[in-house]
Amino acid sequence: MAAGTNDFTLLNTIKYPDDLRKLKVEQLPQLCKELRNDILKELSVNPGHLASSIGAIELTVALHYVYNTPYDRLVWDVGHQAYGHKILTGRKDSFCTNRKLHGIRPFPSPFESEYDSFVCGHASNSISAALGMAVAAKKTGHDDRHVIAIIGDGAMSGGLAFEGLNNVSTTPNDMLIVLNDNNMSIDRSVGGLKQSLIKLNTNETYNRVRFKASKWLNSKGYLNDDRRKGIIRLNNALKSAISHQQNIFEGLNIRYFGPFDGHNVIELVRVLRQLKEMKGPKLLHLHTIKGHGYAPAEKDPTTWHAPGCFNIDAEKRIETDETGIPPKFQTVFGETLLELAKTNSRIVGVTPAMPTGCSMNIMMKAMPNRTFDVGIAEGHAVTFAAGMAKDGLLPFCNIYSSFAQRSYDNIIHDVAILRLPVVLCLDRAGLVGEDGATHHGAFDIAALRPIPNLTIASPMDEHELRNLMYTAQLEGKGPFVIRYPRGHGVLVDWRNKFEEIKVGTGRRLKDGNDVAVLTVGPIGNIAAKAIAKVEKDTDGRISIAHYDMRFIKPMDEKLLEEIGRKFHKIVTVEDGVRAGGFGSAVLEWMADHGHQCRMIRIGLPDMFVEHGTVDELRHITGTDADAIASAILEVHES
Amino acid sequence: MAAGTNDFTLLNTIKYPDDLRKLKVEQLPQLCKELRNDILKELSVNPGHLASSIGAIELTVALHYVYNTPYDRLVWDVGHQAYGHKILTGRKDSFCTNRKLHGIRPFPSPFESEYDSFVCGHASNSISAALGMAVAAKKTGHDDRHVIAIIGDGAMSGGLAFEGLNNVSTTPNDMLIVLNDNNMSIDRSVGGLKQSLIKLNTNETYNRVRFKASKWLNSKGYLNDDRRKGIIRLNNALKSAISHQQNIFEGLNIRYFGPFDGHNVIELVRVLRQLKEMKGPKLLHLHTIKGHGYAPAEKDPTTWHAPGCFNIDAEKRIETDETGIPPKFQTVFGETLLELAKTNSRIVGVTPAMPTGCSMNIMMKAMPNRTFDVGIAEGHAVTFAAGMAKDGLLPFCNIYSSFAQRSYDNIIHDVAILRLPVVLCLDRAGLVGEDGATHHGAFDIAALRPIPNLTIASPMDEHELRNLMYTAQLEGKGPFVIRYPRGHGVLVDWRNKFEEIKVGTGRRLKDGNDVAVLTVGPIGNIAAKAIAKVEKDTDGRISIAHYDMRFIKPMDEKLLEEIGRKFHKIVTVEDGVRAGGFGSAVLEWMADHGHQCRMIRIGLPDMFVEHGTVDELRHITGTDADAIASAILEVHES
Repeated sequence: MAAGTNDFTLLNTIKYPDDLRKLKVEQLPQLCKELRNDILKELSVNPGHLASSIGAIELTVALHYVYNTPYDRLVWDVGHQAYGHKILTGRKDSFCTNRKLHGIRPFPSPFESEYDSFVCGHASNSISAALGMAVAAKKTGHDDRHVIAIIGDGAMSGGLAFEGLNNVSTTPNDMLIVLNDNNMSIDRSVGGLKQSLIKLNTNETYNRVRFKASKWLNSKGYLNDDRRKGIIRLNNALKSAISHQQNIFEGLNIRYFGPFDGHNVIELVRVLRQLKEMKGPKLLHLHTIKGHGYAPAEKDPTTWHAPGCFNIDAEKRIETDETGIPPKFQTVFGETLLELAKTNSRIVGVTPAMPTGCSMNIMMKAMPNRTFDVGIAEGHAVTFAAGMAKDGLLPFCNIYSSFAQRSYDNIIHDVAILRLPVVLCLDRAGLVGEDGATHHGAFDIAALRPIPNLTIASPMDEHELRNLMYTAQLEGKGPFVIRYPRGHGVLVDWRNKFEEIKVGTGRRLKDGNDVAVLTVGPIGNIAAKAIAKVEKDTDGRISIAHYDMRFIKPMDEKLLEEIGRKFHKIVTVEDGVRAGGFGSAVLEWMADHGHQCRMIRIGLPDMFVEHGTVDELRHITGTDADAIASAILEVHES
Repeated sequence: MAAGTNDFTLLNTIKYPDDLRKLKVEQLPQLCKELRNDILKELSVNPGHLASSIGAIELTVALHYVYNTPYDRLVWDVGHQAYGHKILTGRKDSFCTNRKLHGIRPFPSPFESEYDSFVCGHASNSISAALGMAVAAKKTGHDDRHVIAIIGDGAMSGGLAFEGLNNVSTTPNDMLIVLNDNNMSIDRSVGGLKQSLIKLNTNETYNRVRFKASKWLNSKGYLNDDRRKGIIRLNNALKSAISHQQNIFEGLNIRYFGPFDGHNVIELVRVLRQLKEMKGPKLLHLHTIKGHGYAPAEKDPTTWHAPGCFNIDAEKRIETDETGIPPKFQTVFGETLLELAKTNSRIVGVTPAMPTGCSMNIMMKAMPNRTFDVGIAEGHAVTFAAGMAKDGLLPFCNIYSSFAQRSYDNIIHDVAILRLPVVLCLDRAGLVGEDGATHHGAFDIAALRPIPNLTIASPMDEHELRNLMYTAQLEGKGPFVIRYPRGHGVLVDWRNKFEEIKVGTGRRLKDGNDVAVLTVGPIGNIAAKAIAKVEKDTDGRISIAHYDMRFIKPMDEKLLEEIGRKFHKIVTVEDGVRAGGFGSAVLEWMADHGHQCRMIRIGLPDMFVEHGTVDELRHITGTDADAIASAILEVHES
């Protein structure tokens, strides 16, 4: 069957994994084909994460075929891999709602299905969570429960995965870690570990011999707990007889099997059955190809990671014409970074595995020696940047806001205490839309604002972003955080000439007499619309001032004093949590300086916001123009 | 010379490492003895971190002897090791002020000395920071600069160290990582890596042969960059010829040398000189004994990690008589946890390398199978706990507040989103005193308050701590954070009978008419004194109410409504940052509910607070009884 055909005979018989387990093993290759085509078909019209998902089809089918899900636990690391899993576990019919408001979630979630055993979204958490489940199984009388963590090679570079691995061998458990190694995370994976995995892949003879020996020992009943040490010694002896390769997993005392072809579903079933009854922790290394089974995705998996809509047969993405549309903020960041780096030789770039997503690939291409993709390792990205800053460089470190939560201590301990000139650019700050609860950049303002020595700013448009970046790299500015959202800006003609912005200064965009609206970041553009609408709707009876505060820290105290003296009715607007955020900072300042005013703070409510379009979510969270207009009216009438 | 004698002939000639480098290598053992005695003498009367520091004497001397500090960079990981370094780098005379207000800092700090190249305090950051410095050296024309990270085996379990290691081999650099392996962090180190290190230690033959081979190759000029791959292959070939041991460092493509005796200073100098001119990253594995050279510390390094004052010759700690003194909060936590675990079989304990420091060792001793020391791995501790909670257990995870910054994303992503019943106990919340800027638990309230689904509480005294712990483990409570400070409580008779506290309820401790003081946590006891003093000093003209709010989230809205209606003058008091903290939450609530009031928020100011006694720091930060009393008077007069 060619890619894109509509034969789903086998797939249509399967609603839950119980149905799958009724198939003969010889039928599985056909099922994999159908499942792959189903995903292709759906994603061609309803955008999602393509390449990772179709690369994990055979693994997904084999796991559900061999293990007794949901009683046995599959813990997916990063939900990109898991579309096949969703379709096989009761969500085939609703998969067309994937990533849509109130539809199927972008990543596995226990709120959605009992087959989704844990939360996915941020990489590298599967081993730790699965170890917890494996321990819990033993302590709650479910000794026969199998727990399997499925982790990609990209996620293995995260420190959390290592911390998990380091504890796996010293905690009694029988878990299986499946390393789905496609030599890619979103961009290509990096680091010494990757080099090491590549070597393991080239060393099949040894591993084949060893696996056969293990099978034989298992069949003889030798592979129980008591004999484990002996087996590891045997494994190592076999290994050194055939290979000189060092193996990090065995360095951590975890039994290693592989690499195997992750696209041979029949072999996978055979291997998993062998491993299923082995006691103790073990790691199965699979070699897969991201985008497997769909030629263009195999050839360019980065582009096809999340390709948008596409024509299956033509093998072409349906590119939207963006002429005359304001650029994405990330593009402005990427182009501006290169522009600044050309004149300031101290500038270097650091990204944890997101060169394409944050557009640092622009500088990376032009200046490969001055950019560092450190892999999924947000903590290291920040501390590494701090080390460079300490000895004379000026790193721009770009991390998605929600992933930067991983580097919270690094920002405090390694950057802020020493007042080091690290420019931390937080992309995807605020609501991100379809990626949902794990990915909204909701907490950065509230979490970073209390940290001494930080400057925190958010540009209202592209010119401001460029000027803030320009300002941040000037001498003596210290740690400088710039947050901006996912998606497009507002200016088509965005390449302004750089101007320094005095740190801690906002600007009055519009004067007024009755209500002051204070905003920070691009949401100020939505507030401007709301202001215009209210003034129009009330025929100018309500006169509204608009201040773009620009800096969350330090705030513009002169401006605040002006506002505090003139206005007793204030609305603050931000694209982040209300609790402790920008509005809270304004409230604190007013209280500290004796200004009594009525204030409504617009921001994200105290809930995890699910997925949907950004506009839908703005409406739900009360951060759209209507909500801002209502707040202006409410505060005015109070 | 016996331990404790007063012969400092050589040491007295050394003010800076330049002086040290004038000595003959044969003189170094004597210098090490004198340095060790100097530290012992000082620490016997002025408490500090003993065992780690005297275990790193020979390493410290050898490093400064071989390398051109401060031009070459020594990056210490966790400052426990670094007293010898401080004494040899211009701080011999001021070392008697160690850890005292305005005195020598508890850990290396660039603010104190150019020899202190980076911030220390939280473990595992040295490799990332040093890699940054090594990259910066090459890019700023300091190609001849050597950069050395010195990391203990305990810190190697931290994910950040792994993220650093994983990037070391793929980033061009010549750095040296010294692994100071004493098989201990503060308590014994844990995990697969530790097992692996133990095996490497037992495998000296192979390593000796390999080191000799490397030396020979180096002498022939073979060890430049181009040949590196060849050398690694040679190393591995040698290795597999002699040993079957897997080596995680070589698994990450980092050249490995060792283990060597870290107490043979002459050999250390020889080895470091060999390694100094080798290109590319390399790791030197030293075996040291924590507490080396002082018998009682060698025998019981956990007790002698930070022993307080002691009698050198008698080899005895000077124990203070604590009869009739309220217990430490940590003791109440430890005893109560065991008490609860006896009746609730779902309870398990998790600590990242702090069983003694948080007193989970009490439960660990009684129920070894229900407690998990996961090593320095705060992120894993929380996600592992989340996994256990997901499948039916009820983990109490205890982390020092400032170290919990490392698990910020894990709390959000792995615990809060799923509303899992993890009880996160944050010890050392608020000012911690002598450990200084890196260790104050200043940010937890502000950082955690915006996270949905969390319950956050702080007990005013030991009974409240016990009742909160009891409440947190009852069915259906979800994620529950309990923060409490370092040091002693206030109740001698602390073993109350458990009572459930309704989540989100505070209590009125004292009625009043003019000013309401709202507190959270044990600082409420200081506020109570301030209230009594003001009422006394004003002969009761000012009538002050005192509310112990107990919960930061959810707050007691009934109580807040009562306060908002009755009082227009409010003081809030907390042992954490003012920005976005508890006081800010009260302010937000009052603003959201239309209560106009004059409010002064007492809390930590927007600065990193240095070291000193807690009382001294309370005074400096304006969080002592005097400051609270002044705030009451000020708000009353406003």
